[in-house]
Amino acid sequence: MTSDKATQTFPAKRLEAFIANVLGALGLPERDAGVCAARMTEADLRGVDTHGIFRLPHYCQRIRAGGINLQAKPRAVRENAVTALVDGDNGMGHVVVTYAMQLAIRKASEAGLAWVGTFHGNHAGAGAVYSTMPVAHDMIGMYMTVANGNHMPPWGGVELILGTNPISFAIPAGEEPPIALDIATTVASYGKVKLAAQKGETMPIGWMIDRKGQPLTDPKRSAEGFLLPIGGYKGYGLNAVIGMLAGVLNGAAFGRNVPDFNKALVTTNNSGHMILALPVDNFQPVEAFKKEMARVIREMRDSERMEGVDRIWLPGEIEYHKVQERLQRGIPLGSALVEQLRQLANELLVLDRLE
Amino acid sequence: MTSDKATQTFPAKRLEAFIANVLGALGLPERDAGVCAARMTEADLRGVDTHGIFRLPHYCQRIRAGGINLQAKPRAVRENAVTALVDGDNGMGHVVVTYAMQLAIRKASEAGLAWVGTFHGNHAGAGAVYSTMPVAHDMIGMYMTVANGNHMPPWGGVELILGTNPISFAIPAGEEPPIALDIATTVASYGKVKLAAQKGETMPIGWMIDRKGQPLTDPKRSAEGFLLPIGGYKGYGLNAVIGMLAGVLNGAAFGRNVPDFNKALVTTNNSGHMILALPVDNFQPVEAFKKEMARVIREMRDSERMEGVDRIWLPGEIEYHKVQERLQRGIPLGSALVEQLRQLANELLVLDRLE
Repeated sequence: MTSDKATQTFPAKRLEAFIANVLGALGLPERDAGVCAARMTEADLRGVDTHGIFRLPHYCQRIRAGGINLQAKPRAVRENAVTALVDGDNGMGHVVVTYAMQLAIRKASEAGLAWVGTFHGNHAGAGAVYSTMPVAHDMIGMYMTVANGNHMPPWGGVELILGTNPISFAIPAGEEPPIALDIATTVASYGKVKLAAQKGETMPIGWMIDRKGQPLTDPKRSAEGFLLPIGGYKGYGLNAVIGMLAGVLNGAAFGRNVPDFNKALVTTNNSGHMILALPVDNFQPVEAFKKEMARVIREMRDSERMEGVDRIWLPGEIEYHKVQERLQRGIPLGSALVEQLRQLANELLVLDRLE
Repeated sequence: MTSDKATQTFPAKRLEAFIANVLGALGLPERDAGVCAARMTEADLRGVDTHGIFRLPHYCQRIRAGGINLQAKPRAVRENAVTALVDGDNGMGHVVVTYAMQLAIRKASEAGLAWVGTFHGNHAGAGAVYSTMPVAHDMIGMYMTVANGNHMPPWGGVELILGTNPISFAIPAGEEPPIALDIATTVASYGKVKLAAQKGETMPIGWMIDRKGQPLTDPKRSAEGFLLPIGGYKGYGLNAVIGMLAGVLNGAAFGRNVPDFNKALVTTNNSGHMILALPVDNFQPVEAFKKEMARVIREMRDSERMEGVDRIWLPGEIEYHKVQERLQRGIPLGSALVEQLRQLANELLVLDRLE
């Protein structure tokens, strides 16, 4: 463990064990606690600091309030060779989506393709952690989810009935890092808005508008407005479609049915997820495909850059480098978060105090 | 036929017959000419005026230059129960993608899901025309393609190696019009830029930037800059992924391999398309799903509107209304286009002169 005034750095394995210890102390079975810890640590390794251990205090709050079923047994309630509808049994989202993705990979390797939907799940962290799981099996992965809280109206509206509904894709690329796109369909996340407020900064035009459609740039006034979708009506449409495919199709929450999971700690989230796995060799011999992917990736990376731009990045490449860096140097956590985690361990009588 | 100074209006069936006559005169087999005419007229009915009969002169130019195989027989070269890779044999894009979508629908109704990719195809018009085909079979449809010309660099670059790569989804919705999203992943299309130049208008900030990253708002200077993706780096990533799934995975053109089909009339486009069909009843009973879709659609439409906004539209709803309107009142064509079409008929000795 290294430390400076603002952050402390921990080996990934250290944080993973801590998360598993904390969730285990709350009564989550060891295997499930391990799955959650692995997925959350992967998010931190990828540099998605808002979707890893940062969420642990909130998850614990939900568990302690009775909002999560610790004994959940996700299972397929409708199923054929290539699709399944998984009832998440109100378990931890990471457990539900990992189960669904493993089921999809198994079906896809047997039948050539799979689409698995889930309902009665919960927040599962970072999308790319799941969409990239098929890549090790030479498959393309896809993931969509309905966000756990509404921060956006339909295009032309002012009522917050849509979330940041993200979509994620992963594609094997041989000698190059796999392509791993993971984007919310809003221009900015609410987290970014809160961060700007914290830092006393002004938001760029395009992040939020107020109820009259005017740009909202003061993050302290964020409650008076709402997030904007990427590409205006285009992103609104994509956002709604993601919500329908991950939510409505699975009998999961969408629209006014989505509770704000930061406020409603006990209300069942009924969070829905959509997952797809497609083996590359349906279309091209695996090695030839990977070679061609690596070629087009290098073509893009090596293409002429704008003045002042050091490097062109492919989707997921920054995160891939971050994983290498953090595996070596550890995962930095803000001191306030470390303090919060230690207090949590203290309350739960977990011997592991991240010290 | 009605007419005023600027536009003339034709019944849809009239235009469909005209297109079939023209393509037939060029040697396209009657059945294929009919397929192209139907898909192009559907685009016009939907109000996507840039992707219907407007393209006929260009398609004819390509055909006459020898850039399209009129005797093409699209066929699956790799296939299993749920996927197929279709060689389009350099046929008309509408023929290739219609074949691929029909194959996907057949596979999906037998096996529960299908993903079909195509290569050696050509420009196929409007995406929603294809993604909505599964809806009549109570299926969800999805469509992606690599655009036929590059107007965008990778994020941070200045070399035009990406197109407007669109994505389209369609979802059955019972008593409500089906959801039909069809979006290019650039903020504006090149067509819109050209239109602004024609009208002498200024473009909004956000459509284009110049090679130094500065906003480009004079459409007459469009050659000095490039289109911007929706949501900045997010849309760039989505655009690239679409290109990889519709292009690279199918052995179709992507990146520098994409010829500008407006200039290279004889170069084989090797245009790639991706299609997916998923029966709703894998996940929910069909009627219950449609009812719930209609409910969430009304929830969104009836939610509180911004001051001055008359109506909240769902993806594809404007196009759905346009179809009803144009089936009744006909399809309006600009006089310049009508003149161009008549001249085309004249040159090809087609008796049908749209009179």
